[in-house]
Amino acid sequence: METTEIAIIGGSAAGLSAAAAVAKRWPDKRTTVIRKVDKTVVPCGIPYIYGTLGAVDKNLIPDAFLSKIGVNLIHDEIGSIDRAEKVLVRSDGRQLQYDKLILSTGSRPFVPPIDGVELENVFSIHKDPAYLQALYDALELARNVVVVGGGFIGVEMAEQIASMSAENGKKEIRLVEMLPHCLMMACEEEFCLVAEQELTRRGVQVMTNCQVKELRGSDRVEEVVLADGSVLPADVVIIGIGAAPNIDLAASAGLEVDARRGVLVDEYLRSSDNDIYAVGDCASKFSFLTGKPSGIRLASVAASEGVIAAGNLYGVPMRKTPGAVGAFATKVGKRSIAAAGLTSHAAAQEGIDVVVGAAVAPNMHPGSLPGAIADMKVKLLFRRDNGQLVGGHVCGGDSSAELANALAVAIQARQTVYDLSVMQFATHPLLTASPVQYQLMVAAENALIGA
Amino acid sequence: METTEIAIIGGSAAGLSAAAAVAKRWPDKRTTVIRKVDKTVVPCGIPYIYGTLGAVDKNLIPDAFLSKIGVNLIHDEIGSIDRAEKVLVRSDGRQLQYDKLILSTGSRPFVPPIDGVELENVFSIHKDPAYLQALYDALELARNVVVVGGGFIGVEMAEQIASMSAENGKKEIRLVEMLPHCLMMACEEEFCLVAEQELTRRGVQVMTNCQVKELRGSDRVEEVVLADGSVLPADVVIIGIGAAPNIDLAASAGLEVDARRGVLVDEYLRSSDNDIYAVGDCASKFSFLTGKPSGIRLASVAASEGVIAAGNLYGVPMRKTPGAVGAFATKVGKRSIAAAGLTSHAAAQEGIDVVVGAAVAPNMHPGSLPGAIADMKVKLLFRRDNGQLVGGHVCGGDSSAELANALAVAIQARQTVYDLSVMQFATHPLLTASPVQYQLMVAAENALIGA
Repeated sequence: METTEIAIIGGSAAGLSAAAAVAKRWPDKRTTVIRKVDKTVVPCGIPYIYGTLGAVDKNLIPDAFLSKIGVNLIHDEIGSIDRAEKVLVRSDGRQLQYDKLILSTGSRPFVPPIDGVELENVFSIHKDPAYLQALYDALELARNVVVVGGGFIGVEMAEQIASMSAENGKKEIRLVEMLPHCLMMACEEEFCLVAEQELTRRGVQVMTNCQVKELRGSDRVEEVVLADGSVLPADVVIIGIGAAPNIDLAASAGLEVDARRGVLVDEYLRSSDNDIYAVGDCASKFSFLTGKPSGIRLASVAASEGVIAAGNLYGVPMRKTPGAVGAFATKVGKRSIAAAGLTSHAAAQEGIDVVVGAAVAPNMHPGSLPGAIADMKVKLLFRRDNGQLVGGHVCGGDSSAELANALAVAIQARQTVYDLSVMQFATHPLLTASPVQYQLMVAAENALIGA
Repeated sequence: METTEIAIIGGSAAGLSAAAAVAKRWPDKRTTVIRKVDKTVVPCGIPYIYGTLGAVDKNLIPDAFLSKIGVNLIHDEIGSIDRAEKVLVRSDGRQLQYDKLILSTGSRPFVPPIDGVELENVFSIHKDPAYLQALYDALELARNVVVVGGGFIGVEMAEQIASMSAENGKKEIRLVEMLPHCLMMACEEEFCLVAEQELTRRGVQVMTNCQVKELRGSDRVEEVVLADGSVLPADVVIIGIGAAPNIDLAASAGLEVDARRGVLVDEYLRSSDNDIYAVGDCASKFSFLTGKPSGIRLASVAASEGVIAAGNLYGVPMRKTPGAVGAFATKVGKRSIAAAGLTSHAAAQEGIDVVVGAAVAPNMHPGSLPGAIADMKVKLLFRRDNGQLVGGHVCGGDSSAELANALAVAIQARQTVYDLSVMQFATHPLLTASPVQYQLMVAAENALIGA
């Protein structure tokens, strides 16, 4: 029987992070990653295949990454896990003995139970190069594209396909979102509006407060019917309305699972079997800020969980997850939007009373510098009862993501409005706001003063 | 007699931060900024006058900033302070009554006591538009430019003047630094080398381990003589080797001062007179990381101190300075370099035993994205005895500054290598490294493992 000491099922963000951390922590252990797909795509890079990159094969994670760190790779699907014997059963029945197992089986796109979703040219986002190539080919021929779902994936797909149209004749791109705004689950409403403006500027028709009722067509999709009865022409439909954890393998192995939350894990990321860990989209999570179960599925959480699980495999577990923070970034047109923690809306829903402070300044100083974005904004949410930072939102230039990471650190370090209002920050004319107007500091002071 | 309730002497980074914070905290108090120069330049923007901006008047802080927040502005020099009567005496003898006073008189460039520094066309960097215009005019005619001092100001000046030369005929620009490398006081040696490479690429001759012995010329400077006897031709010499606090006004008013450290202040930034505060370059500082007196004079510290002093003016002082962190950023050619806290060299000098962790990854993901910088590097220094982050260094794309600010927050929040190794960070293909390779997290894990 083939044997490995550490087996990792799945090779996307969580699995790769785990593999990298395992290779460093346990260099003497034989480690094997088993993954279904022949090649791995950069998951967050998928939208950019359809615009900036222009090809699926420019968005691959090279397998050399694994061989370089001494981790074996098996292209195969694991059919079942025999926990008693500590054996993985491969698609052809061959067995792989393991000592410790990390499940990073990810998630699958959620497809709504409406008529017509099985029609040709209806796609969702799978991390499979062949599937993504089929979408590419279909998009090249399409005149009318409907993207269903205005979350990150939908917004980024629509934005990128809009740039595709320039080369391939005019496409009509419609982005259909059920909620009042795109990105509403992650962003402050004012920044959702910025994203929608940028989409509109790039020729995307943003249709909010719209629910899809059914898809129509003979073999191939031809129309999207909305709840209000209106009909959109569609040569291609892309559905991006969320993801569900892949738990079938874990469930069939008798591990405790929850259809929505995923493989249930403790703070050490151990499943109900102490030799099996679960990380990334397939694993259950709780919120860093509320302690409640969390539906946040982000690469940032997956990457952190991979490292945590790797550290806990042998000996006394040393690392606990502090919970999912929800740190993310996106770029729509010329605007980058990034955040960490709660939105105002989420805070209200959780019953957390917040004090808000905001500050706007050019992203360079003086603002007359070429390329300056005049109104880079930071908005901070602090708990009223103890001043703790619970949400930070940034909208501006390309440095927004790293500025949000300063906020992510502040949230994770449980910093307060008192701390942030007098902190020192690196500034430079070409790279940041001026020291006097540095948004993070000024926003905190504004929150204190109630400005 | 004219009266004001809060007087602020000096209107650069510290004074403006104080004015902005005072206007918010004490909106009912009459506040007046008194400043010598007719117009205020953006201090950190000065080098960019000579390249990217192309004019002194594109680097001004508009006075509208003060009137908008309801703060009065007086263009004048204060000759003396009568502390007993709480009166400022203006240049023409007129008096201004104050209740609380904030000194933000800044620093003046240090000029070495060598022969020839008084010659025409020998400049240092003064925050005075007319002076900076005279330098501009001299540079336009110059063929041979020698910049003395390879700190931030020297490096940025040389880099910018190099772009000036393209339009005005070929200039020979020589940057003379006493130490083995440029930027050595602030940057890790490997990043100093990057800066030197970028300077060389832009046509600047970098001359390290070189000390200037004297300047020669009849009326106007003609030659720079080095300690080894070699002679450099020079039509313009720019001296940027540090700054000394402006303490004359404070000293003549009987406040406790130190010629090197500045106006001596306590943690609340109060001088030896409880109604007089001092902030920014003119005020004494201590190090956040060592508690010892610190020579760090940065806009980031000044901005923070302005806010701290403003909060303490009335009632029971509420804000203490935690000490100077030393957060900074610069850009040399295509590379941005930023940091917070100690260098390896400084840590060794302080007797702090550190564990170093580093990580390199492209600043976008996949690395095939247009504009990606393949080798954005983060280097972290942790105390060996307790794991505390004491230094963070970044070299890469333009987001380096905000990434260093994530490190600045981590240092100020006293985060450890254990905290950082599993933190969650916002990532995005166009804006950051991949979640799996995110440098800050990976560098912390590498430090833990000793990789």
